[in-house]
Amino acid sequence: MTSQTETGSDIIANGRSYRRPGKPVVIVCIDGSEPGYIEAAIEKGLAPNLDRLMKTGANTTALCVIPSFTNPNNLSIITGRPPAVHGIAGNFFYDRESGEEVMMNDAKFLRAPTILAELQKAGVKVAMVTAKDKLRTLLGKGLDFASGSAIAFSSEKADKATKDDNGIDDVLNFVGLPLPEVYSADLSEFVFAAGVKILKTFKPDVMYLSTTDYVQHKAGPGAKLADAFYEMFDRYVGELDALGCTLVMTADHGMNDKHLANGEPDVIYLQEILDKKLGAGAARVILPITDPYVAHHGSLGSFATVYADEDKRGPIIDILKGIDGIDVAILADEACKRFELPADRIGDVVTLSSKNKVIGTSPAKHNLSGLTEPLRSHGGLTEQTVPMIANRKIEVPAGRTLRNFDVFDVALNLVR
Amino acid sequence: MTSQTETGSDIIANGRSYRRPGKPVVIVCIDGSEPGYIEAAIEKGLAPNLDRLMKTGANTTALCVIPSFTNPNNLSIITGRPPAVHGIAGNFFYDRESGEEVMMNDAKFLRAPTILAELQKAGVKVAMVTAKDKLRTLLGKGLDFASGSAIAFSSEKADKATKDDNGIDDVLNFVGLPLPEVYSADLSEFVFAAGVKILKTFKPDVMYLSTTDYVQHKAGPGAKLADAFYEMFDRYVGELDALGCTLVMTADHGMNDKHLANGEPDVIYLQEILDKKLGAGAARVILPITDPYVAHHGSLGSFATVYADEDKRGPIIDILKGIDGIDVAILADEACKRFELPADRIGDVVTLSSKNKVIGTSPAKHNLSGLTEPLRSHGGLTEQTVPMIANRKIEVPAGRTLRNFDVFDVALNLVR
Repeated sequence: MTSQTETGSDIIANGRSYRRPGKPVVIVCIDGSEPGYIEAAIEKGLAPNLDRLMKTGANTTALCVIPSFTNPNNLSIITGRPPAVHGIAGNFFYDRESGEEVMMNDAKFLRAPTILAELQKAGVKVAMVTAKDKLRTLLGKGLDFASGSAIAFSSEKADKATKDDNGIDDVLNFVGLPLPEVYSADLSEFVFAAGVKILKTFKPDVMYLSTTDYVQHKAGPGAKLADAFYEMFDRYVGELDALGCTLVMTADHGMNDKHLANGEPDVIYLQEILDKKLGAGAARVILPITDPYVAHHGSLGSFATVYADEDKRGPIIDILKGIDGIDVAILADEACKRFELPADRIGDVVTLSSKNKVIGTSPAKHNLSGLTEPLRSHGGLTEQTVPMIANRKIEVPAGRTLRNFDVFDVALNLVR
Repeated sequence: MTSQTETGSDIIANGRSYRRPGKPVVIVCIDGSEPGYIEAAIEKGLAPNLDRLMKTGANTTALCVIPSFTNPNNLSIITGRPPAVHGIAGNFFYDRESGEEVMMNDAKFLRAPTILAELQKAGVKVAMVTAKDKLRTLLGKGLDFASGSAIAFSSEKADKATKDDNGIDDVLNFVGLPLPEVYSADLSEFVFAAGVKILKTFKPDVMYLSTTDYVQHKAGPGAKLADAFYEMFDRYVGELDALGCTLVMTADHGMNDKHLANGEPDVIYLQEILDKKLGAGAARVILPITDPYVAHHGSLGSFATVYADEDKRGPIIDILKGIDGIDVAILADEACKRFELPADRIGDVVTLSSKNKVIGTSPAKHNLSGLTEPLRSHGGLTEQTVPMIANRKIEVPAGRTLRNFDVFDVALNLVR
């Protein structure tokens, strides 16, 4: 009953069709924005613009991609499809041939064109700003900067942006803010400030803004640091809305406390467990949350994948099922089907931990010195629900379950 | 990009469009069929028909409705829409006016027409068989038995079926099996045996078969009782498939162990906790899993809703968030939005427990004498993934997340 109707001017990206925008469209991905953060800020009167838009526009939720990590979800949003299609199932995978853990930051690992690149090819003017540079190369892939109809840069390396590589230079002067620290709320504020400036001057038809979850890893809904973040965000929401754009906001994943009552992280050290039960080297645990910026989560999340010989996989699942706090322990086949993951970028067993627990390798491998607050993290099923908020009403077809990676569809096709 | 194309002969039910079937369509809801049951039976060679169909047809998963209980999901399947549309959010709700706990078994509580009734009105011949009679009145609502183009009965009361009320009489003789016990695998086998006989003789265009999870509450994937059930099921799958129908199978919800290592149910007695912290009578905990057949689960599931005055709701959520094993604790507004629930059939706070825990009221209120095995139950997010299996290939539009209540859409519109 659902059919893709391709009209003359619609633009196809990865098998989905998008209408050309009648007015500017701004899509915001608020990293780690668990439902409740915005509501807590509204309750204290700190977010009047969001309060108003959520009443007059649309306020619903959507499901993110599992693993509920930043890169798989940002790439799903920018391609409109799950990791099975775009290939980015985490920050790392294990290359069985070379025996190396390979980082998937490079644009070569992305298997699908981005919606922004397809829009630009069809004559739509586009812009993208992301907090961390690790995402910029992926999200900005395929954009043609020579044409003057695309901008893409990161807050982190705003000072290094060039016309050739980013479609813009002298960004600090353009935005009017100093280069922010990587570990700061300022890194995200820079994204919003840049977005407002770009909307006013470059006037893109479609813009994607993606923040970092530094604050959300440290502070839960209603906490002072979180309220301050959403108060800041709300000011920019007001500015963007006042500029007359269609504004749709979602998140890459949620965020939950993952610690014991005493404040220590509640960790299942899975490599250690498997080494003890199966012998060292029988299984290799990969934590795809691991990336070069681990200070705020110590590489601890609720998703892990295990590489092991075939005869070990059943026993590994049995061991996992016996561990308190494991929500899911399944073979790769089932995981690829259930979570729409790329078979060659995932291990042989996939496991997810419960709401307040994370999965680690072994204690010595995790540098937790950067954890100044009790651990909050993500990766599991319990961080799958995220907000979907728009400054216009939206019409979702009967029977359809929204995903966060429907956000371009929502903004371009489903707004009324 | 998704649009409902209404062709001359398509049939609309609750805002969704269904094609008239070219050949007979059989939809099976296997109650409590957590992913893994079928696979375990296949691995032992007990389910050769399912093994074959899952390879040559379609084998994927879908998300069920929360609460992951039988009635909300069966009604979602038969209407094609979530509980917000059809009104059945559980077996019970609390009527604030009368102060009574009201059972939602009666067909008057169903707010949407069934797909079967809409199909019949459009000239399609339909049949429905369900295990327990509590579901029969809801699933069979709106069918016109006088016309001779509909059959609907339950295994439980197969001996009581009449032409006037069920479109068929003398069912025991028709099926050729004795009346099964309510607490038995036979109750579900009777559904399948009846389905095969109906398909051969009554020759409906569309048939819905819905079983009971007696076995799944008692035995996990690969356990003897479970394997025997799926071996039996597989025989009927073979028969149905051989009769040339389009066969699509899903489940109403999954099923997980909900007990401690010693075999005792792992229960959060929430009424007791709230009474202690807020004073007796401040909050009323409703367990919508409660029904007249509680022997196999003792009314213990992973979903509860709490009725309380406005000033108590925040404190209740805070208390819930402090309890180990609570995955979700949210206000009704958020729950209705997130899980698409009907606002007037749900309490003021909605809470879900984690994979291996259930929520009870107080110990004295639960009769656990019927629990002959360590508790297995459902209701939460961890029982949301269910199989979606078809004997033909299916084509799911890009970007769409399947729900179990898409099963009529899958069978009538998405098979190739």
